[in-house]
Amino acid sequence: MSTQPLGIFDSGVGGLTVVRAIQELLPHESIVYLGDTARVPYGSKSPRTIREFADQDVRFLVSRGVKAIVVACNTASAHALGELQAGAGIPIIGVIEPGVEAALRDPDCQRVGIIATRGTIRSHAYQHALAQRRPDLLIIEQPTPLLVPLIEEDWLDHPATHAILDTYLSPMLERGMDTLLLACTHYPLLVPVLKARIGDRVRLVDSATTCARHLEAHLEARNLLADRAPDNPATLEIHLTDLSEQFESLARRFLAHPPGRIDRVELQ
Amino acid sequence: MSTQPLGIFDSGVGGLTVVRAIQELLPHESIVYLGDTARVPYGSKSPRTIREFADQDVRFLVSRGVKAIVVACNTASAHALGELQAGAGIPIIGVIEPGVEAALRDPDCQRVGIIATRGTIRSHAYQHALAQRRPDLLIIEQPTPLLVPLIEEDWLDHPATHAILDTYLSPMLERGMDTLLLACTHYPLLVPVLKARIGDRVRLVDSATTCARHLEAHLEARNLLADRAPDNPATLEIHLTDLSEQFESLARRFLAHPPGRIDRVELQ
Repeated sequence: MSTQPLGIFDSGVGGLTVVRAIQELLPHESIVYLGDTARVPYGSKSPRTIREFADQDVRFLVSRGVKAIVVACNTASAHALGELQAGAGIPIIGVIEPGVEAALRDPDCQRVGIIATRGTIRSHAYQHALAQRRPDLLIIEQPTPLLVPLIEEDWLDHPATHAILDTYLSPMLERGMDTLLLACTHYPLLVPVLKARIGDRVRLVDSATTCARHLEAHLEARNLLADRAPDNPATLEIHLTDLSEQFESLARRFLAHPPGRIDRVELQ
Repeated sequence: MSTQPLGIFDSGVGGLTVVRAIQELLPHESIVYLGDTARVPYGSKSPRTIREFADQDVRFLVSRGVKAIVVACNTASAHALGELQAGAGIPIIGVIEPGVEAALRDPDCQRVGIIATRGTIRSHAYQHALAQRRPDLLIIEQPTPLLVPLIEEDWLDHPATHAILDTYLSPMLERGMDTLLLACTHYPLLVPVLKARIGDRVRLVDSATTCARHLEAHLEARNLLADRAPDNPATLEIHLTDLSEQFESLARRFLAHPPGRIDRVELQ
């Protein structure tokens, strides 16, 4: 058992979908969240820059005394996880392995589509992890850089969103995709739209809930879960490198319960 | 006359539309360009963070020995120009004044629309500058945060772009807009699409070309123009804080002539 909080970071506020999934599954865990909103997004940037930023993010969370870190950013998981794990003295969990395991849990999974930022797709991290376990799998990668801006605008049911999803998904459906991996922590907000469009043909696997389940098993195996006694109230600290009305209102939309204070921090 | 180069900065590569306009108007001017691609975009971030970033951008250009600086970023012009001008020992020119002057040059201008990032709109910098000169003017502000991602994807003629432009422009047209100020340095790439849609009813004024004309007058008045002799070849240095395939290919699309080497720099 551990009384230390969990650390979670993302390039921005998208990782709050992972916080929400963890809060639902592990309500006694206190969380320190860091969103690098001053430099968001990471998804369009180079691997070298992403690794530098992720390293600073981890150092901040370690300085806050966390017991384990969740890299709730697919781009950072894809480019920096190995290095981060090698350098830190605490467990560091990415979102890719949990997503891949969840996709392959269904034995009927034959044709997996992956949608993500350009940075995540360019890394081929999902493709490699899937192909390693199932060399026979058909894997269809599709960068979908316009989805984050649309989600941040809350234009989930706008004709433009439908036109953009058509362009992205049609070639994947034509190739017989049976499973769609939502490889960006913003995308859980698209689940209702995707379910209505392709839910009868395609199984959806999202980063946030699969990551929360993986985290639970990981903490349990290492005896790092928090005390589940009813007098152990969990806390949520949110630190952002830039504060703006937009980020604060997005943060509220991404979480089930509105957060208390949000702090601005500078990274070194 | 001056042999020093001009300095130009933007949050990313959008400011290269200003470089292009300056190269066309002032082909003998050498240019040092800085794009803060590691932290792009500025448009969604807070005034405080934008001012910090802009200050670092100016310090970098001053260290390269430039004779004057163009803030080729509407968001930074809106939030930081006054402070930057007060602190620097060289002329610093923004994109807002030139755009406002160009819009008002037509005596028939009565109802001006402004499209820009959220950061620029929230500053009301264009609205204030217009209202100060022409208190009778009807001013219609419209944040258009999805246009930069669409332009960067080169989806200029996609059905989604038309649907998004409809949503943004319809309320402005209903209010009788006669002039549209493109208050973001990415938007000159949208001019053909906008001309085809609303060019018969609305005059378009873009930041890039108006800024180049303003700069020429400014340099001339201070005797800072470069030697126009044919044996004075102008150079273009491009420095980005992050290098990625995407930024390099965008940079080529935004310039008339492909640039030579692009350097990665770190700001202090």
